Formats: sequence, C-alpha cells, structure tokens
Amino acid sequence: MKLRCATTNPGKLREFRLASGDLEIEPVPNLAAIPAPEETGATFEENAILKAVYYSRFTPDPVFADDSGLETDALGGAPGVLSARFAGPAATDDDNNRLLLEKLAGARTRAARFVCVTALAQQGKLIATFRGVVEGTIVEAPRGANGFGYDPLFYYAPFGCTFGEAERERKLEVSHRGQAIRALVTYCRGAAFR
Amino acid sequence: MKLRCATTNPGKLREFRLASGDLEIEPVPNLAAIPAPEETGATFEENAILKAVYYSRFTPDPVFADDSGLETDALGGAPGVLSARFAGPAATDDDNNRLLLEKLAGARTRAARFVCVTALAQQGKLIATFRGVVEGTIVEAPRGANGFGYDPLFYYAPFGCTFGEAERERKLEVSHRGQAIRALVTYCRGAAFR
Repeated sequence: MKLRCATTNPGKLREFRLASGDLEIEPVPNLAAIPAPEETGATFEENAILKAVYYSRFTPDPVFADDSGLETDALGGAPGVLSARFAGPAATDDDNNRLLLEKLAGARTRAARFVCVTALAQQGKLIATFRGVVEGTIVEAPRGANGFGYDPLFYYAPFGCTFGEAERERKLEVSHRGQAIRALVTYCRGAAFR
Repeated sequence: MKLRCATTNPGKLREFRLASGDLEIEPVPNLAAIPAPEETGATFEENAILKAVYYSRFTPDPVFADDSGLETDALGGAPGVLSARFAGPAATDDDNNRLLLEKLAGARTRAARFVCVTALAQQGKLIATFRGVVEGTIVEAPRGANGFGYDPLFYYAPFGCTFGEAERERKLEVSHRGQAIRALVTYCRGAAFR
C-alpha cells in the first residue's frame, strides 16, 4: 500500500517520512497542478478533513493531509488555525514570529502548545483523524535555525531548548506532528485498504 | 488495556462489543452518575469528540464515544446530527421514523446514508476519530424489528432488506457503526497507551 500525502511543504514532507518508518509516503500525483482548497475550518480537525477528502479524489490510494498550529493561553488559543497566516495571507515565518512576540509582550503567561491533526481519506471519503499535542512556552526571542514555523520560539522544557535548537529526529519523537503521523501509521499498518 | 465506552445506550453497547472482537470494552465507571454534556456540535466529529474528551476526565483508561445518524439527500443531509431528536427532545424511535416518512413523502430521491464517528480520548485529550458510512435508501414503511433508531426504514440493497430485518451480526459487518468501531479497534491494537 502506498500512502499519499497532500502537502507541498518540504519541511512537513521530510517530517512525515522520518516519522513513518518503513511505510512508504509519496505526495499525491501532480499535486502542484491541483488548485489548493480554501482552509475555511474553525478547527484543526475541520481543515485537515477538508484537505484530505479533497485531495483523495485525485488518486485511488489513501491520502492524508495535516493541519497544525500553535495555541497560546494568553491569546485565547490564537494563532490556532491561522498560525501560517497570522501576520497576513503572504506572511513568512519571520513575520509570524515577530507578530507573536509583539502580542505576547507583557502577557500574564507564555504557555503554548503545538497541535497537529492528520486526516486520512480515500476516494472522497473520510476514514479517520489523529491528533498530536505538545506543551511548551514561548521564549522572548527566536533561538535556533532548525525546524520551521514557530519552532525557534517554542521552548520545550524536557529538552531544555527550543524546537528550533533541537535536532530534527529528536524533535519528532515528542512533537505534535510526530505523534499525529505515528498514530496515522499505527492505524494504516493494521487497516485493510480496499 | 481496557477500553471504556461512554454510552448508556444498550443497543450501541451491544454493537460495540460485537464489533470489537477480543478487545475488552467496558462502560466508563459510574457513567449513570455523570451529567451528560450537551451535544452542541454541527458535525458527527464534533459531537463524538466533545463526548469522548468530556468522559475521559472521569477515568485513567482510554475512552471512546460515538455520534451517529442518518443523512438523506432529499432533506439536504437532515436529520444528520439531530437524528435522535428529529421529532423533538423526548422523541422515540417511532416518532422520528414517522416524521422522516412524512418529510420524504413525494421526495425526488430516497437516497440516504448512515454515518458513525467514534472518537478516542484519554484524560481530557483527544487522540483520534474514525468514520464509518453505509449507503442505502429509505423505504415507504418500517420493516423488521431488529436494530434500533432508523434501522427499520433503511434499505440496504446488497442484503435485499432493511437493517431492521437484518441479523445483528450480519448488519455489523457492513454498518456505519461496525466500520467505525473496527477502525478504532485497529488503531487501539497497535497503539501504546500511556
């Protein structure tokens, strides 16, 4: 069985492959030519589901998509599902990180968590979703060049460093994305796909 | 590992146990004494998630809940998440079945599907959701005394009878609930619960 992923984000694809062990993960064929659906969901589950169901219509293989982001307590869960577009539709990681630090200046708490939801679908039908969560705090300035997104701001106490400073393999053992992809793989190994 | 289910519906519990093979399923301890949460979700996923997360705070074991219902094409997906309360908050299966037949009188299509979503959580954290779907049509009058809910109205062409006429074991092999519980069990067998 070949599991197809619906991401054009090379950072995510690398992490999916690292976390999936010997289960083969390939992108949806001709993914770049398929117009991306609008991510209109209010939750990570909704967005992951709409992407997986949409892209699963373009191949007979099972397809998964993910939606992920950062939630902060001081901002009532923001940036949440808007994490990638926090500073606007064309925002870079740097833009988003800067805006987050601005908004958290003087905040009562810097508690935060990364959430990742993977959704699995086949030929237009949703099969399952899997959720991974990792708790941390937001540091005062970016630290480390590894990872992507908010990784340089996310301090993970058990490691004593940010996800931007952690080695990729080590981060994946504990990260939201590592958890959500391993749960998906656990399911896929036991499932009999039609 | 003991998997806890968050249902007080004896019909559902029987079906969960039948579909789960040798994986032990027990209700959440003292379930009857726990006030039920309001099912405010707009989707089966949302309702299953809110129930699983809520009840998982009352036991250290992993807990699953389900949300299920009937969607009809002629009524734009209704009764959907309102299936159990279609004819009102205290509606019986008979009330709901009668109302559905009324609303479908003269409808352009009687196409329908049963949907079941199981959600798995542990100690307040969502882990995964699993979706099962079975397609059928709504007959003109109830047929058969097996099952519950809309089963007597749901004609399943491969069996040549309604779910109300089908044997329980045979129905579970193809039903929405059978699919969603088997997917959950597939995941749980491979998962290492903390």
